[in-house]
Amino acid sequence: MPGNIAAPVVKNKKVLFKRYIDGNPKESDFEISTESTIKLQVPEGSNGVLLKNLYLSCDAYLCFLMQGSKSSMAETFEGFKLGEPIGGMGVSEVLDSKHPNFTKGDLVWGETLWEEYTYLPEVRALFKIQDHKDIPLSYYTGILGMSGLSAYGGFYEVCQPKEGERVFVSAASGAVGQLVGQFAKISGCYVVGSAGSKEKVELLKELGFDGAFNYKEENDLNAALKRYFPEGIDIDFENVGGKTLDAILPNMRMHGRISVCGMISQYNLEKRDPIQNAYWVLFKRLKMEGWAVLDYVHLYQKFIDFILPHVLEKRIKYVEDIVVGLEKGPYAFSALYTGSNFGKQVVKVFRD
Amino acid sequence: MPGNIAAPVVKNKKVLFKRYIDGNPKESDFEISTESTIKLQVPEGSNGVLLKNLYLSCDAYLCFLMQGSKSSMAETFEGFKLGEPIGGMGVSEVLDSKHPNFTKGDLVWGETLWEEYTYLPEVRALFKIQDHKDIPLSYYTGILGMSGLSAYGGFYEVCQPKEGERVFVSAASGAVGQLVGQFAKISGCYVVGSAGSKEKVELLKELGFDGAFNYKEENDLNAALKRYFPEGIDIDFENVGGKTLDAILPNMRMHGRISVCGMISQYNLEKRDPIQNAYWVLFKRLKMEGWAVLDYVHLYQKFIDFILPHVLEKRIKYVEDIVVGLEKGPYAFSALYTGSNFGKQVVKVFRD
Repeated sequence: MPGNIAAPVVKNKKVLFKRYIDGNPKESDFEISTESTIKLQVPEGSNGVLLKNLYLSCDAYLCFLMQGSKSSMAETFEGFKLGEPIGGMGVSEVLDSKHPNFTKGDLVWGETLWEEYTYLPEVRALFKIQDHKDIPLSYYTGILGMSGLSAYGGFYEVCQPKEGERVFVSAASGAVGQLVGQFAKISGCYVVGSAGSKEKVELLKELGFDGAFNYKEENDLNAALKRYFPEGIDIDFENVGGKTLDAILPNMRMHGRISVCGMISQYNLEKRDPIQNAYWVLFKRLKMEGWAVLDYVHLYQKFIDFILPHVLEKRIKYVEDIVVGLEKGPYAFSALYTGSNFGKQVVKVFRD
Repeated sequence: MPGNIAAPVVKNKKVLFKRYIDGNPKESDFEISTESTIKLQVPEGSNGVLLKNLYLSCDAYLCFLMQGSKSSMAETFEGFKLGEPIGGMGVSEVLDSKHPNFTKGDLVWGETLWEEYTYLPEVRALFKIQDHKDIPLSYYTGILGMSGLSAYGGFYEVCQPKEGERVFVSAASGAVGQLVGQFAKISGCYVVGSAGSKEKVELLKELGFDGAFNYKEENDLNAALKRYFPEGIDIDFENVGGKTLDAILPNMRMHGRISVCGMISQYNLEKRDPIQNAYWVLFKRLKMEGWAVLDYVHLYQKFIDFILPHVLEKRIKYVEDIVVGLEKGPYAFSALYTGSNFGKQVVKVFRD
């Protein structure tokens, strides 16, 4: 009987959480462990799955799980444990399953840990991938996963864009921003993005943005916004926060909408930047709304039905920055906060 | 023929705009003129009306029309002219009309000027009052006018309150706040208000607020909010802004709503208070929305159908602070900014 064949025990490289962060995450806040082993089999009596991790998603929110008791999300989420592998979203292959929804050989995306093989004793958020030829599996860490759903929910649900409206996207070449810009064009909007390098600005233009600027070359962000939006901004898709948001507020048009997807400039500051221009929320009758992708999970199928034709017919492009090898994970993750990534940051663990 | 009877010419007292304000409006920014006269007749060829002003509404937004080119609303509204009477909303009697919708003897509410008699050459926003016995006419400056519609739109449309939710109202004894608190109770919410005197705090309790505090007696507003909202705030109806809003933000619950009706603490500052806690909009997934009563004009009849039974059956109370005589206008208007008014501030001009 197959049950008698002993499952192999293999080495299992891991990215361990080494210390609570002080400021933005750095490579030295992690440690690579190569000593562990894992038996590639779900134990008897478990409902779990055993995963081989193919791609891991680098997401900015993970820093909140590294801040210990100082985290603004300490009430909501349990943080990473020192000495344990960090976790997040990824694309994996099911090597063994005692869960009724999954079978050996399935490709899945969802929760996993930053290690080569992961045993999940309990499945909470794991979704089977319907394999599409021509679509890279890594896309399920981004455009077809949380980043895509974030762009979709945060733009269409929160902003209710109308044809001809003027859209600004900060951190516009990132995992979410590059999609929001392309969605804005599909909706007939004028869209301008900011990013942190000449290459990223070029990318935005290639993706169809009407304008793009390097915020590092602008001494006066307010003047830059006025240059691209002489008549003001209807929709701000906010990824940066702090001084960027403060410059945007007085440039908003009446009844403008600010969709707060992220405030990456503020996550790891000891003292956050003050906002001087909050009163424009009143005077310009703005709606400013914060949200999390969890708020839009119910829209996932609708989103997939919307985005797949665009992806398959190459009307929407998606730029990924893929590092190869789990040991590059700490570098790749830290890159989100220095801006040295170019597009959606992914770690490739295994994939032939 | 009646046309041959000469219309009387009478003295017409006025509140004139004397100087652009520097800081909050003061009595000395106005001047009372008693020298003008007016013929109580609409001129031939006009489509206008001639009004006898009964009650004038003191509204905080009027200060934006007194700030000259420094006004945050300079783009949107033309300010008052020096040496001319200020304008606003009021309740009036039609003494003469060449406008098809109005007849001599009609009672109306809407636009007028701060003078005893007003000739409006063009009617833009004037509404006939269906006379209800038992309802004071002055209510059309407040609960049955813009203040009531503001409370209704800003609470029900923006906040979508649900039974059991926790509501905070700042400047809660004011023209709008006292109504929002009572609407919150009608909707089955828990509601706490802040105000600036012991008497106002007592009033809020009499109006049915579950709790009320004098913000002047609280050294630490954050601590006060935590005392009344140990589990956080679902809905903030914001009238004050600045430091008050900054203390509220970290006390909001997940998916909370902040309806920005006003920011009276910020209107006349040279440099507005910075907001340190804007990032909670993201972390608590808040919706913060600014609006103006103009956004809800289409709901006026629906609002009246809602509020009239409550008023007639005395389930909702409304507290007015009425000064008698147009010459008291500058004092009454300035009182909004010192908080020395007690309830909706009204100026009674004529009424037997």
